[in-house]
Amino acid sequence: MLHPVILCGGSGTRLWPLSRRDMPKQFVQQGAAPSLFQATLDRCGGKGFAPPIIVTREDSRFIAAQQMQEYAVQPRAMLLEPAPRGTAPAILSAALWLEAQGDSDAVMVVAPSDHRIQNEAAFQSALAQAAVAAEAGRLVCLGARPDRPETGYGYIELEDALPPIGLPVSGPQALALDPAARSAASEAQPVARFVEKPDEIRAQQMIASGRVLWNAGIFVMTAGAAIAAFASYAPAVLAGGREALRAAVPDLGFLRLEAEAFEALPEASFDVSVLEVADTVSVVPFEAGWSDLGNWDAIWRDGTTDLHGVAASGPVTALRCRDTLLQADPEGPHLAALGLQDVAVVSTRDAVLVADRRDAQGLRGLVASLKEQGVSVAETSARVHRPWGWYETLARGARFQVKQIVVTPGGRLSLQSHAHRSEHWVVVLGTAKVTLGAEETIVSENQSVYVPLGLPHRLENPGKIDLHLIEVQNGSYLGEDDITRYDDVYNRA
Amino acid sequence: MLHPVILCGGSGTRLWPLSRRDMPKQFVQQGAAPSLFQATLDRCGGKGFAPPIIVTREDSRFIAAQQMQEYAVQPRAMLLEPAPRGTAPAILSAALWLEAQGDSDAVMVVAPSDHRIQNEAAFQSALAQAAVAAEAGRLVCLGARPDRPETGYGYIELEDALPPIGLPVSGPQALALDPAARSAASEAQPVARFVEKPDEIRAQQMIASGRVLWNAGIFVMTAGAAIAAFASYAPAVLAGGREALRAAVPDLGFLRLEAEAFEALPEASFDVSVLEVADTVSVVPFEAGWSDLGNWDAIWRDGTTDLHGVAASGPVTALRCRDTLLQADPEGPHLAALGLQDVAVVSTRDAVLVADRRDAQGLRGLVASLKEQGVSVAETSARVHRPWGWYETLARGARFQVKQIVVTPGGRLSLQSHAHRSEHWVVVLGTAKVTLGAEETIVSENQSVYVPLGLPHRLENPGKIDLHLIEVQNGSYLGEDDITRYDDVYNRA
Repeated sequence: MLHPVILCGGSGTRLWPLSRRDMPKQFVQQGAAPSLFQATLDRCGGKGFAPPIIVTREDSRFIAAQQMQEYAVQPRAMLLEPAPRGTAPAILSAALWLEAQGDSDAVMVVAPSDHRIQNEAAFQSALAQAAVAAEAGRLVCLGARPDRPETGYGYIELEDALPPIGLPVSGPQALALDPAARSAASEAQPVARFVEKPDEIRAQQMIASGRVLWNAGIFVMTAGAAIAAFASYAPAVLAGGREALRAAVPDLGFLRLEAEAFEALPEASFDVSVLEVADTVSVVPFEAGWSDLGNWDAIWRDGTTDLHGVAASGPVTALRCRDTLLQADPEGPHLAALGLQDVAVVSTRDAVLVADRRDAQGLRGLVASLKEQGVSVAETSARVHRPWGWYETLARGARFQVKQIVVTPGGRLSLQSHAHRSEHWVVVLGTAKVTLGAEETIVSENQSVYVPLGLPHRLENPGKIDLHLIEVQNGSYLGEDDITRYDDVYNRA
Repeated sequence: MLHPVILCGGSGTRLWPLSRRDMPKQFVQQGAAPSLFQATLDRCGGKGFAPPIIVTREDSRFIAAQQMQEYAVQPRAMLLEPAPRGTAPAILSAALWLEAQGDSDAVMVVAPSDHRIQNEAAFQSALAQAAVAAEAGRLVCLGARPDRPETGYGYIELEDALPPIGLPVSGPQALALDPAARSAASEAQPVARFVEKPDEIRAQQMIASGRVLWNAGIFVMTAGAAIAAFASYAPAVLAGGREALRAAVPDLGFLRLEAEAFEALPEASFDVSVLEVADTVSVVPFEAGWSDLGNWDAIWRDGTTDLHGVAASGPVTALRCRDTLLQADPEGPHLAALGLQDVAVVSTRDAVLVADRRDAQGLRGLVASLKEQGVSVAETSARVHRPWGWYETLARGARFQVKQIVVTPGGRLSLQSHAHRSEHWVVVLGTAKVTLGAEETIVSENQSVYVPLGLPHRLENPGKIDLHLIEVQNGSYLGEDDITRYDDVYNRA
C-alpha cells in the first residue's frame, strides 16, 4: 500500500495569466478537463493506494477541497502550511503526521500536483520499483530520462551508465513515440550526485555521458526513513516541524500547522537539505513523458503540435504560424493568429499574454510590472472561488454590477448585510434557499427575489445540483468589503 | 459654403477584429473617443459648412443616425445605397440630390468617413484652396505628401515638381513633427496623371522625382461639375443614377435609392471612371498627417509610438517589444506583451488577433478562414446595434442567457412575444416604460419586472438619459429568432 502525499501549496507566476496567486496552476480547470491536481489525485489513487495526504496553504484550501469533492476523493488528512517554506517542511509534516498515526512504516509517494505525466503505466511501474527500494529503507527519487539539454531542471547523476534508450528523441515530437517503447522502468540505482540547473554546455556534456536523469521531484520512502534522514541532516527543521504539528489546530477538516513554529523554519527544499547530503538515496529511471510544465515553453513542448510546431487549444484559428503556442480559454475570446514564430499566446477572459515563447525569465519581469502598476489581473482571477462555490463579475457600471453566482450542493453563504447596495437575484438553474430577515423561502428556476439594502440575508443550496443565479447589484458603493457577516459556517474572518 | 458628402457605406475586414460586417471601422467607438465617422462629421462641420449629406448602406443606417444624434448633427439628407457599387454611384447620387434641390452650384466636399487627419488646420487650409478651384469648375483632389514608398495607395503625378518639404520625414516619427511645419497648403495644381498602387521600386522612383502625392480620396467640386463629368465620361452611370434617385423612397428620414436601377450600375470608383479620364482635374497638396488607416500597419504608423516603435492603446503592459502595435479594448481583457517584434495584437472582448503587422493580405485570408469555419466573430460583434440602442450578451448557459440592454432616449422596441422564454428585467440606470399585455408601467432604477412566456410586451425609454437594464432569460430555446413582432416603429421586417 502506497501513501500519496500531494504537495499543492505552490503559487507560481511562470504560467501567468493562466496561473495566478488566487488560482495556482495545479487547480486551473479549462472546460471539462480535470486540473493537474485532479490528474495527480487520479494517478495516485485507486488500487494499491491509501487515501492521500494533502499539504497546501491557507488560500488554496477550499479550492483543493472542492476539487477533491468533484472527484469523490476523501483525503486522509489536509495539512495547512501557515507560510511557504519549501518542500522540506511540507514533506516532513506529512511524515510526522503518519508517525503520529503509528504509521512510520508507511511508504509515502510524495508528488507535486502541478506536473504532467503522459504515460501512466510507466509511472506506476516506476512506483512499484521505487517502493521495493523504499521498503528496504532507501530514499528514492524518480528520474526522468532527458531528451534535450534543458537548463531549467535539476539533474541526478548515476554511478553507472543508463541502458540505452530505444529511440532517439527530441523536441515535442518525442511525445509521438510508441508508448510501449517508453513504459519500462529500471530497478532503483544508487545516486552519485545531484546537479542543480546547469548551463547548456554542461547539460549537453551530462546527457552525452549517458549517466544523468532529470529530477522529477517525486520521492518514495517510508515516513520513518524520511524522519530519520531529517534527524541526521536537518535536525533543526525536524524539531520545528515536530512543534508545528504538535500544536496544530483542527479546523473544518483541515489541520492547521502551528504558525509560530512553522514560520520559524528556514525556507528549504527536500532535495538540497536532505537528498543531496544523505547516503541512502536511490533513483528509479522512468520514461513516462514527464514535464514540470514550468513555463510556457514547457507547455508548448508538452502539447500536441501540428507539422509546423503549432500547439493550439481552445477556440483558435491559425494561419502560417511556426513553433507557436496558441492557448485560448474555451469560454473566452476567439484567438486568431497570423504569421507568428516562436510566440506563446495565452488568452483568458480577463487577460491576454503575447510573448516570446522561450523567455520565461522575461515573463517574471512582466508580471512584476503588472503588479507594480496595480493591475488586478496580475494576481487575481475573474472567477473568485469561495468555500461555497464561486462568483464572477459579468458587467459593471457606475452604480450597478452583475454577477454570476454558483453555489455547490450544500453550500451556504454567510448571513450578511450590505450598507450601500440592494440585490436582485434570479435563479437560472437549481434551487435556492433564501433567508431574508426572519423569513426563509425556496426560490426555484425562473424565480427572483429582492434583497433590500441593510436587510440581513443568506443564500444556500439545499439541492443536489449546482445552483446558478444572476445577481444584479444597485448602489452607490459596490466593493466586496461592504459586507457585515453575522454567521459563517466556514469560520471566515 | 461647403457641402460635405460623407461616404460611410464601407465594410472592410482589413481591420478585423475591430471592424466587422456589422460594425465597420468608421463607426467603431472605443471608450469615450469619437468614431472616425464622428471625427469626419466634426472636421466637415461648423462655420462655413452646410449640414452633411450622408451616403451609406441599409445595414449601417441606424448606427450612422445614432452617431449623428450623439453629436447633435442634423444631416441634410441620408441616402441609402441598395448595394455596394463603389464611390462613383455614391458621389453621383449626392450630386444629383443637390441638383434636385436646385443646388447645382453647391461646392461638395466628398470625404470618406474612415480616414484620419491629424492636422485639422492644414486640412481646412487645403479645403479653402480646393474650393477656389472648384468654383472655377475644376474637379479637385486633395493630395497628401508621401513620406515613404507606400505600395497600398494610389499616386497623383503633377506636371511640375512640388516645393521641397521642410523636413525629411519617415515612419511613425513623422507625426511628432511640429504641426506648423506641415500646415501650409499650396494652391491647386494641374494633374499629369494618376498611378494606381505601384510596386515598391516604382514608388521609390516616383517619390524621388518630387512630383507625386498620395490620392487621399477627398474630392472638392460643384455638383454641376461632377454631373457634367459623368455625362462626358460615364454616361451610363449617370443615367442609372438619375433613375435610382428619381424612384427613391423616403423611409423614416432616410432616402432609399431605387434598388433595381442602382443594382444595375457597374461597380465603379470615381477615380477610375471620372478623374483618370477627365481633363479638368486639379490637386491641392496638403501635409496634414493623413492616413487611410487601411490596415494594421497603417494604424501602427498613424499611432504615437515610444522610442522602440511600440504603439499601445487601452489596458496594455509591454516589455522589450519593438515596432509593435498593441491595441486593447478599454473594457476588455488586459493585454500583456513580451519580446515581440513587428507584431500587431488587437484584443477585443470576443476576439483576439495576433499577427505579423505587415501582412495585410494574410489577414484577409485569416478572416476568410474564420468565415469558412463558421466562427461568428468573423462578421458579427458582441454588441448588437439596433435602431433603439444596443444589447450585449453577458453570459449564456444551457437554459439561460443574460443580456445588458441599453435603450436611447425615445427608443422603443417592437411589441413582441416569445414562445420559448420568459424574461426578468432589472433597471440599473434610467427609467423604463414597460407594456405587459394590456398594462403599462413605469419601472425605475433598482426595480424589476417579470415578462412571462407568451405575453406580448414592449420596452421603451420615455426619459432623457440612456436606459440600462439587465435581462435574464430563462427557457429551452434562447435564439434571437424566437420573436413574434406585432408592431414596430422602425418598420423592420
